[in-house]
Amino acid sequence: MAQNYSFKYFTVQFPAENPYVAHVEINRAEKMNAFFEANASLTSSWVTSMWLEMRQVFTQLSEDPSVRAIVLSGAGEKAFTTGLDVKAASQGGILSSDSNLDPARKAVHLRRHVLEFQDCISAVERCEKPVIVAMHGFSLGLAIDLSTAADIRLCSKDVRFAVKEVDIGLAADIGTLSRLPKVVGNFSWVKEVALSARIFGAEEALRVGFVNSVHENRAATIAAALKLATLIASKSPVAVQGTKEILNWSRDHSVQDGLRYTGVWNSAALQTGDVSAALLSGLQKRTPTFEKL
Amino acid sequence: MAQNYSFKYFTVQFPAENPYVAHVEINRAEKMNAFFEANASLTSSWVTSMWLEMRQVFTQLSEDPSVRAIVLSGAGEKAFTTGLDVKAASQGGILSSDSNLDPARKAVHLRRHVLEFQDCISAVERCEKPVIVAMHGFSLGLAIDLSTAADIRLCSKDVRFAVKEVDIGLAADIGTLSRLPKVVGNFSWVKEVALSARIFGAEEALRVGFVNSVHENRAATIAAALKLATLIASKSPVAVQGTKEILNWSRDHSVQDGLRYTGVWNSAALQTGDVSAALLSGLQKRTPTFEKL
Amino acid sequence: MAQNYSFKYFTVQFPAENPYVAHVEINRAEKMNAFFEANASLTSSWVTSMWLEMRQVFTQLSEDPSVRAIVLSGAGEKAFTTGLDVKAASQGGILSSDSNLDPARKAVHLRRHVLEFQDCISAVERCEKPVIVAMHGFSLGLAIDLSTAADIRLCSKDVRFAVKEVDIGLAADIGTLSRLPKVVGNFSWVKEVALSARIFGAEEALRVGFVNSVHENRAATIAAALKLATLIASKSPVAVQGTKEILNWSRDHSVQDGLRYTGVWNSAALQTGDVSAALLSGLQKRTPTFEKL
Amino acid sequence: MAQNYSFKYFTVQFPAENPYVAHVEINRAEKMNAFFEANASLTSSWVTSMWLEMRQVFTQLSEDPSVRAIVLSGAGEKAFTTGLDVKAASQGGILSSDSNLDPARKAVHLRRHVLEFQDCISAVERCEKPVIVAMHGFSLGLAIDLSTAADIRLCSKDVRFAVKEVDIGLAADIGTLSRLPKVVGNFSWVKEVALSARIFGAEEALRVGFVNSVHENRAATIAAALKLATLIASKSPVAVQGTKEILNWSRDHSVQDGLRYTGVWNSAALQTGDVSAALLSGLQKRTPTFEKL
Amino acid sequence: MAQNYSFKYFTVQFPAENPYVAHVEINRAEKMNAFFEANASLTSSWVTSMWLEMRQVFTQLSEDPSVRAIVLSGAGEKAFTTGLDVKAASQGGILSSDSNLDPARKAVHLRRHVLEFQDCISAVERCEKPVIVAMHGFSLGLAIDLSTAADIRLCSKDVRFAVKEVDIGLAADIGTLSRLPKVVGNFSWVKEVALSARIFGAEEALRVGFVNSVHENRAATIAAALKLATLIASKSPVAVQGTKEILNWSRDHSVQDGLRYTGVWNSAALQTGDVSAALLSGLQKRTPTFEKL
Amino acid sequence: MAQNYSFKYFTVQFPAENPYVAHVEINRAEKMNAFFEANASLTSSWVTSMWLEMRQVFTQLSEDPSVRAIVLSGAGEKAFTTGLDVKAASQGGILSSDSNLDPARKAVHLRRHVLEFQDCISAVERCEKPVIVAMHGFSLGLAIDLSTAADIRLCSKDVRFAVKEVDIGLAADIGTLSRLPKVVGNFSWVKEVALSARIFGAEEALRVGFVNSVHENRAATIAAALKLATLIASKSPVAVQGTKEILNWSRDHSVQDGLRYTGVWNSAALQTGDVSAALLSGLQKRTPTFEKL
Repeated sequence: MAQNYSFKYFTVQFPAENPYVAHVEINRAEKMNAFFEANASLTSSWVTSMWLEMRQVFTQLSEDPSVRAIVLSGAGEKAFTTGLDVKAASQGGILSSDSNLDPARKAVHLRRHVLEFQDCISAVERCEKPVIVAMHGFSLGLAIDLSTAADIRLCSKDVRFAVKEVDIGLAADIGTLSRLPKVVGNFSWVKEVALSARIFGAEEALRVGFVNSVHENRAATIAAALKLATLIASKSPVAVQGTKEILNWSRDHSVQDGLRYTGVWNSAALQTGDVSAALLSGLQKRTPTFEKL
Repeated sequence: MAQNYSFKYFTVQFPAENPYVAHVEINRAEKMNAFFEANASLTSSWVTSMWLEMRQVFTQLSEDPSVRAIVLSGAGEKAFTTGLDVKAASQGGILSSDSNLDPARKAVHLRRHVLEFQDCISAVERCEKPVIVAMHGFSLGLAIDLSTAADIRLCSKDVRFAVKEVDIGLAADIGTLSRLPKVVGNFSWVKEVALSARIFGAEEALRVGFVNSVHENRAATIAAALKLATLIASKSPVAVQGTKEILNWSRDHSVQDGLRYTGVWNSAALQTGDVSAALLSGLQKRTPTFEKL
Repeated sequence: MAQNYSFKYFTVQFPAENPYVAHVEINRAEKMNAFFEANASLTSSWVTSMWLEMRQVFTQLSEDPSVRAIVLSGAGEKAFTTGLDVKAASQGGILSSDSNLDPARKAVHLRRHVLEFQDCISAVERCEKPVIVAMHGFSLGLAIDLSTAADIRLCSKDVRFAVKEVDIGLAADIGTLSRLPKVVGNFSWVKEVALSARIFGAEEALRVGFVNSVHENRAATIAAALKLATLIASKSPVAVQGTKEILNWSRDHSVQDGLRYTGVWNSAALQTGDVSAALLSGLQKRTPTFEKL
Repeated sequence: MAQNYSFKYFTVQFPAENPYVAHVEINRAEKMNAFFEANASLTSSWVTSMWLEMRQVFTQLSEDPSVRAIVLSGAGEKAFTTGLDVKAASQGGILSSDSNLDPARKAVHLRRHVLEFQDCISAVERCEKPVIVAMHGFSLGLAIDLSTAADIRLCSKDVRFAVKEVDIGLAADIGTLSRLPKVVGNFSWVKEVALSARIFGAEEALRVGFVNSVHENRAATIAAALKLATLIASKSPVAVQGTKEILNWSRDHSVQDGLRYTGVWNSAALQTGDVSAALLSGLQKRTPTFEKL
Repeated sequence: MAQNYSFKYFTVQFPAENPYVAHVEINRAEKMNAFFEANASLTSSWVTSMWLEMRQVFTQLSEDPSVRAIVLSGAGEKAFTTGLDVKAASQGGILSSDSNLDPARKAVHLRRHVLEFQDCISAVERCEKPVIVAMHGFSLGLAIDLSTAADIRLCSKDVRFAVKEVDIGLAADIGTLSRLPKVVGNFSWVKEVALSARIFGAEEALRVGFVNSVHENRAATIAAALKLATLIASKSPVAVQGTKEILNWSRDHSVQDGLRYTGVWNSAALQTGDVSAALLSGLQKRTPTFEKL
Repeated sequence: MAQNYSFKYFTVQFPAENPYVAHVEINRAEKMNAFFEANASLTSSWVTSMWLEMRQVFTQLSEDPSVRAIVLSGAGEKAFTTGLDVKAASQGGILSSDSNLDPARKAVHLRRHVLEFQDCISAVERCEKPVIVAMHGFSLGLAIDLSTAADIRLCSKDVRFAVKEVDIGLAADIGTLSRLPKVVGNFSWVKEVALSARIFGAEEALRVGFVNSVHENRAATIAAALKLATLIASKSPVAVQGTKEILNWSRDHSVQDGLRYTGVWNSAALQTGDVSAALLSGLQKRTPTFEKL
């Protein structure tokens, strides 16, 4: 079992009762887990921020052989995350307009910044292990971007979701608009919530398929996520990680390309010892064990 | 505020109580708003028709800076539209077979005709402002094509939907078959209604996600659509129009291409004054106002 | 009306009361309709198997002009199919590791095998006539692959579904991972069931849109499927087959490419006599009849 | 044979000795055929311009059944076209920065303008009949955009080509950057000429495959183009127009999608009487004649 | 070494001096190797034909472990192949119009026929081993379709190429229009030869990159092809077959998708013993030997 | 002007006579600039290597505002680079087979490794400034991968190129197979050199369009590259960097998607002051100066 450890804004725990599961928590409860960007300015590189830390966490877990499934939640009772720390952003971040570059040059800096930011969120999608996100309380803006990059979404009854970006004058640019139409098959609803920025709750989220299940409160949601993660972590990691990869590939390709990619992928993956281990355990009604990956 | 005006088959109103909202109505109630094609023949160009008028309406509203959201409905209590005016079509339109061209040459004319017709419907999708469609009564064939090109779909309790085309011996070719699988994430249901042409009602439409909400009657549906349009029109037009554009782009591209396009788009859009206006208003609990677009 | 006939593992019937409908049944009830691969080894070609037979059935029906719609079900009360016959597979099939090729060469053989297997399942999708699948009892693994290649899914109350593959140590490679995200618009749910292999029932399948309707038992499900098939078979076969083709094309292409393909397709299809037959029957309130296709 | 006619900046002739061929000429020799945009401003619609006229010409010829092939050339000995009339553009066109919109709003106007401009150029590609472009003298900027939208490029010895746009501070945005890499299979060369804006001549253009052949002077180039057009116009128009369409489709799609589209296209096109006419003429060593299209 | 064998229209030889090389020859010299379709009619299935035989040959060689490279040539001095046997086709094949189906139904039969025909040609591309085509004399129509599906093209000085299809009233539909723009990076030239059907010779073919080299006569061309095939066959078959597959995939996908597919492909392929065998032989200046594949 | 600096294997110089140009040189002449991977093993992360250094160099130059164009060359007279240091690789790198993981797990590590390696090469393509590569002497394997990721290729007379990978038993997996077919429009030639690994020289490289020009020797090639870089660096950086970006996007997308992306890109880029600066300088026959980017 791996040691627990902490970054400045994130903690990573390996609960003893959930083998092969990592529990990542956003840990800035006093600011409702809002994302904060220290020292960022338009023309300097932006070295210290929560986004970078989050990318580091998921990149590390992606290759950590002691991890087979991940749960992501937010500390404190009030919010999973309220998104961008607006006050901070308006005081000197990328959205403040203190630069006297011409609009074309400013656009280059803004594009770099947005792409870098997107890449931090995409680290959750790129992570080779399944990520289950457990949301509660305020889950606004960035919360949606982040959760659509995860694999499975759960929430508590008290959750308050919103694709909040139009309310601050911008089109959501770090993932929601690209991923939400692909995780929820109801384009009319996606457009309504993205264009109106209105709040929606747990029941609606469940009905449209944004979340898989609703739980009593934050603790119960995290418990359910850990339980599901533990179940997934008990399966062959070769099978589980291949399944995540192929499903994500298929989302973005034709069925024909999906099938061909799958054929190439499994030409190596089927050579695992896990298949005979699983088949044998199945016939003998035993729980199989699998090598690390 | 813009002046109301009328085309032959469409009226465009700017309700005083809904700032920045245009209300477009199909206005051929005596024929259940069926679409009619005057003077069309296989080999002549087809100069006057409802389709062309509809394209003109939406192309104009797309660039009209006094418009930020659009509601589309049908006049009369009986139907949003029953689709193609079958009687007229069988008497001399494109579907009558009076030509003695060989099948290859006839195919060229038919293809041109279908592509032109599709383009009229696509004008609703191309329109830079969000379009909310409020449907009631008979909403058949073309009604589905048209509504899937809109952004948000609402309906009344009495609505009767059908992908009617197979019943007149043809595969729906002006949008439904290309768009319906992308607006409703239930391919089995899409195939059933498209292959059987059976009627479905408001409740079923809500359950599968074809519409967002169901209202008491025609008037209530239009009222709800206008209310939602007004809410959307109160947001930054830079944010709203960017959101529509990026969502439509993302529907047709991979997540990776979606993110990259978004980054380029927002490199200009983030330079709007709307962001600081919105942020400031948010902090000051005021309602922001935005320049026209 | 065509004659009924049987293959070794499949029966094909043409019920007198369902004109133009073929009823295909998997016929290995004593083994819960598990798929069996005779004489397969890693390096020989695998000449006799249920997959090949299934491909032959659907390829034949695809071009049979007396068929306009197809129902697929499983014999016996216990299962639609439990998928791969694991016992047989572990004793000498492709998954047994008796070969001493190096992993790269083994991968070539495995890839060929998987692609061939995928192609058998894809025969259901390629079939020009709509395929309605009626599932009951255990419907595991391959059952999901197979049903996602069909057009419309129905099930009985007692159905027990599972994307079972991770439980035998592999990523589902013959269709489920490529098609399931495109037939069910709830990516979070798709990932949960594919990563956890958990059982889900009829009610859940209906709620997420995996099936269109739930019926009392196996017999009632097959009856409903035959009724729907009969309805579809009463429509113009030009319209129905075009609708299936264009919907499948649209699933894998942008809206723009969908519209263009539709325009070309219909440039020939609109030249059918079925359009005037259907229009005329409609005006005369008669049931139209259509030439074979 | 059709009547010759003139627009303000374009003439359209139907040379008696070239049946079924239209000869379009850019007719502003006194300004080296530079493209001029009257009355354009950033916020008004731009009603009169050479681009719009050009779109009108090619849209009309596309459906004109008396036309089977088109030659495009420039009037005067000095230039095919020197591209944008820079002086005019700097005095009040879209590139002048007299507007006080914020950069995001300005971007919306610029984007609309660019897309409209692109669409005018694309009219040459959309034209259903093959377009052969005959270039001579200065052929700068827009000349490249325009010629890459045509099907076949010829030039005279004195031609001076340049992808001139970077020299006026912009990335070529009306076609060259999207089409040049697809018409010339030498990406290193494409990048060099696009990044450096350097002049290149006939010999280099021939060597890299930008043009098919080099001719003595303007007159000889046009003569060669007319001769080739006449040859193409002597073939079945069903075959010729299908060939153009399928080649353009194939450029933008995978081989698999190309084959499938071709199959659908030819399912109608093969039903032409032209096939038997051509086969019969071939066996009888006669010149076939074909119906108009 | 495998035994030589013959089909009705093709011979397959394994020259002793060219280990691991198969030499396939079209063997209907008395009819200039024209492709002939016995017993084909519009509505029956077409059971015996040269196309089917050719597909069988290449499918078989694809999995034959004693084959590592293939040469394809035509028997007789006059022609590689003159393409479709026009006389036969006009007397009763698919292009004769003896059917009284309506144009829509006829289109279905024609499409099936074209897709089946395309699939026979695509067997050359699908073949896992590299195919070098050696062309001489008349190489018309189908010769181009066929050779673009091969990997490497060589020809003799006397070759006479033409994309002949427009001369018989049809757009080339079995591969040329989809593949030629992707094997020759000169779109202007491709359009000229496809639209005009004009003859072009060896020198022009070399200049535009349609062939790699030109040889004195038929015998010398075949000898050069066999020599190149022998060189390729001396390399690791894992490396060679992977290279063919990845190059074909890359042709149809973005660079990003190409890289990702390559990464998955090589994750198995790099586990071959061939790498260390080749590295070791390289360091020891020996000729490596590789296991069959 | 920036300061020159050195990494362990790369030097970066800013020649005084070439304003805004960076000259990067591979600096391991004693080993013919072969790429070397220190401390890499299959399961550890591989922290120090030439690839990582190269990625760092190009990532840094990409955002360095004092750089507008880059030249890449190799130190020493013998080689640009001979590619992978085979001896080192066979002694303990990723290709050595000392691991006892099962083939599926080994595949995961290999895939990660290949993707990381590809990403280092792609840093050259991602670099926002144009990269001109000047090659001489042995330019094998990795040299091709690397140069296809650059924008413009030049070489000296003595160059000896080879896509060398099949000679060490593997399909080139870090870029050549994905990019070479897109930079050279001669698929037959690409396949020949990739399948045979044969050496080709400067003349052949020029003829097929792999390089733009051939120079007397290493020094002359670098001089020509610097001259071209200086020319490009004298243009508007907004125009140049936009041109590189749009050309790379267009390579991987349809013309339609290329045009649309260009429209969005230029909606910001056209707002640069560079356009009026360039127009004004042009009219006044002065050399324009542009702000940094």
